[in-house]
Amino acid sequence: MLNDSDFIKTCDVPGPSKEAIRAIVLYKSDVKNDDVVVDVGCGTGGFTCEFAQRAGRVISIDTNPEAIKITKKNLKKFNIDGDVTLINNDGANALKSIDGIDIAIVGGSGRKLEEILELLDSRLNSKGRIIVTAILVDTKVEAINKLKELGYNPQIMEVNISKGRVLDRGIMMMSENPIAVITAKKR
Amino acid sequence: MLNDSDFIKTCDVPGPSKEAIRAIVLYKSDVKNDDVVVDVGCGTGGFTCEFAQRAGRVISIDTNPEAIKITKKNLKKFNIDGDVTLINNDGANALKSIDGIDIAIVGGSGRKLEEILELLDSRLNSKGRIIVTAILVDTKVEAINKLKELGYNPQIMEVNISKGRVLDRGIMMMSENPIAVITAKKR
Amino acid sequence: MLNDSDFIKTCDVPGPSKEAIRAIVLYKSDVKNDDVVVDVGCGTGGFTCEFAQRAGRVISIDTNPEAIKITKKNLKKFNIDGDVTLINNDGANALKSIDGIDIAIVGGSGRKLEEILELLDSRLNSKGRIIVTAILVDTKVEAINKLKELGYNPQIMEVNISKGRVLDRGIMMMSENPIAVITAKKR
Amino acid sequence: MLNDSDFIKTCDVPGPSKEAIRAIVLYKSDVKNDDVVVDVGCGTGGFTCEFAQRAGRVISIDTNPEAIKITKKNLKKFNIDGDVTLINNDGANALKSIDGIDIAIVGGSGRKLEEILELLDSRLNSKGRIIVTAILVDTKVEAINKLKELGYNPQIMEVNISKGRVLDRGIMMMSENPIAVITAKKR
Repeated sequence: MLNDSDFIKTCDVPGPSKEAIRAIVLYKSDVKNDDVVVDVGCGTGGFTCEFAQRAGRVISIDTNPEAIKITKKNLKKFNIDGDVTLINNDGANALKSIDGIDIAIVGGSGRKLEEILELLDSRLNSKGRIIVTAILVDTKVEAINKLKELGYNPQIMEVNISKGRVLDRGIMMMSENPIAVITAKKR
Repeated sequence: MLNDSDFIKTCDVPGPSKEAIRAIVLYKSDVKNDDVVVDVGCGTGGFTCEFAQRAGRVISIDTNPEAIKITKKNLKKFNIDGDVTLINNDGANALKSIDGIDIAIVGGSGRKLEEILELLDSRLNSKGRIIVTAILVDTKVEAINKLKELGYNPQIMEVNISKGRVLDRGIMMMSENPIAVITAKKR
Repeated sequence: MLNDSDFIKTCDVPGPSKEAIRAIVLYKSDVKNDDVVVDVGCGTGGFTCEFAQRAGRVISIDTNPEAIKITKKNLKKFNIDGDVTLINNDGANALKSIDGIDIAIVGGSGRKLEEILELLDSRLNSKGRIIVTAILVDTKVEAINKLKELGYNPQIMEVNISKGRVLDRGIMMMSENPIAVITAKKR
Repeated sequence: MLNDSDFIKTCDVPGPSKEAIRAIVLYKSDVKNDDVVVDVGCGTGGFTCEFAQRAGRVISIDTNPEAIKITKKNLKKFNIDGDVTLINNDGANALKSIDGIDIAIVGGSGRKLEEILELLDSRLNSKGRIIVTAILVDTKVEAINKLKELGYNPQIMEVNISKGRVLDRGIMMMSENPIAVITAKKR
C-alpha cells in the first residue's frame, strides 16, 4: 500500500491517481504476476508503482519527459524493483511497437484516445483488459463509445471519495474530484 | 441568485455556504416574506444575504466580530436592504433574548449545538423550522439525536456537489466538500 | 415546498425531479413573478408545479400524453392555480410556436436536445435563462457543447444526494442517482 | 475479481459489500499470503471470499446462522479453497478465543462496536490492521472515537460510487449507497 502523500510530485505532471482509484484499478485489472502491463500516460507513476509490484512486466509511456523522470524517482523512492520500461513518447506512437499486452491502463491520452484504444485492441492478448481512468466528462463518453464500437462490453464506475480530517472538534470530510473508471475485457 | 465568487471573503471567517446549499436551505425553509429568521453562526453571510431578500426580518449572530463585519459588507455589496439585525455574541447567549422565530438556520454552533437547539425549540413559533448545516460527521449525529430528543422528526440530506470547468479539451469536474442539511419542523 | 413522496407517480412517466434538484433549478433560474417559463419534457410535473407557484406563466410540454395527465393531476393535488398551459407534443414542434421565454427548463428532450436548444435560443428573451437537467453522461457533453456553439457560457453542476433514514440504531444514508444541472444565460 | 452480481444472496443477510469497497479494503489491508484475517460480521461473505484468496487464514464470524451458510455457499460457488474457519457466534464472544490477528475487518458489529474494537486491539499482532466499514453515520463517529481512545491514528474515507448502465441512448449512472472505510494500524 502506497500513501498518496508519499509520492514525489511536481506541478508539471498530473497525478498520482489517488489511492482509492489505484485500489479499484488494481482490483478490476485482476493482475497476475506474469502479466504484461502498459501504463499509457503514466504521469507521476501512480499506476506504474502499483503494477510494478504485482505484474510480470510494466511498460510506462508518457509524452512528457518530466513524467518519465518523476515516475523513475517514485519507483526508486518506494524501492520497487519490478521489470519496468519507461518510454518517453506519444502513447499512440509507442504502442505501435508493443505487443502481447495483458493489461492496458490509459490514464492520459493526449486527445488521441480513440486511436490509442484501436491500437490497444489489436495489441491485447486474448483475455486482455483495458482500463481507462477519466477526469473529463467527454472522455467517459468517448471511451465507452469507442470500446462499444470495437466490440467490447465496457463498464463504467464513477468514484467520489471524501477523506476525513480527524480534528479535536470532530471529523471533517474533504472531497477529492470525481474520477470514472472504465473497464473492458477482450472477448 | 448570488454567485459564490461574488462574496467578499476573509481567511478568518468560514463560508459562504455554496450556492447549492443555499438553494436547498432556502427551499426547505419554505420562507415567506413576513418570516422572522435567525442565522446562528452567520459567518460570511451567505444565508443572511439570501434570507434578507425573502424574509420579513433576519437576525444574524456570530461570536466572531470579523464575521459580523464581513456579513455587513456582503449585504452592502449585493445592495440588499432587508431588515437585518447583526449581533456579535455567542449563539446560545444571543438566542436567550430572541423570540417568535419562524426559521432558524444553524450554520455554526461553537460546540454548543445541543444548547442552541434546546433554546431554539423554546423560541420557535408553531410551524417553525430548524435547519442545521453540518460539515463535521459528529455534528450530523448530534443534531439528529438532539432533535429527536426534543420531539422533532428530523430529516437529513447529504449534498455532494461537483462543478465543471468548461475547458477547450472538455469538462473537468471539481468537487466541493460534502455538507449535510438537517431539517426539522415544529409539530 | 413539495415533498417528493407527495407527487402522484406512474411507471410510464419519469420524475419528478427530486427536491434538491428542484431547489437548485429554482435558485439558478432566478424566477420572477412575471416570468414566462417553458418546461420541456415536463414528465411528472416536478418543475411545472414549482414554477407555477412562482412565475407569471408556465408552458409545459411533453410528447407522452400520460405525462400531461399526471402533471395536471399533480397541479390539482397541490392546489396550484398558477397560469399553466399543458401541451402534448414533441418539444421541438411545440417550441416553434412559443416566443418570449424568460426561463426554459429542459428535463427531457427525446434525443432532440440540439434542435431544442437552437429553438430556445431564438425564442428566449434577452436576459433569458436555459436550464438543462441531465441524467445521461452523453447529455451533459451535448448540452455544454451546443450551448457553447450558440454563444453561451454554460455552467455545469453535478449533484449527488443521499438522504438519511433515521433508524433506532442510527442514521443510514441512501443515495439518489446523480443529476447534472446545466445553466446558461443569454448575453 | 469477483462480480457483485455473481454472489449468492438472501434477503435475511446483508451484503456483499460492493466491488469498489472490497477493492479499497483489500488495498488498505496490505494483505500478505501468510496473514491471519478475521471477518467480523461476515454477512454474505464478500470480504471472506476476497481474503480467502490472498491471506494465509481467514476466520469469519457472524451471529446469524444464515450468514454462515451463505458465506459457505459463496466460497464454494467461487471455488475458493483457502483456509477459512466459519464461526456462528456473536463477534465479541468469538473474538475472546482468537489471537494473533494480522487483519481485522469489521463489517457488522451488532451494536457492540466499542467492545469489539477493544478486543481486537488486545488480539492484534504488532503491525496489525483494523478496518471498519460503516453504513450508519453514527458508526463512523463511534469507530473513529474508539480507535483514537485506544491509541490509534484512524483514517476515514467515504466512498460514493455510481455505476453506468450503457444504454443505446447513452450512459445512465446509478448510485450505490455511501460507505465509509475506517482504517487503523497498530503502532
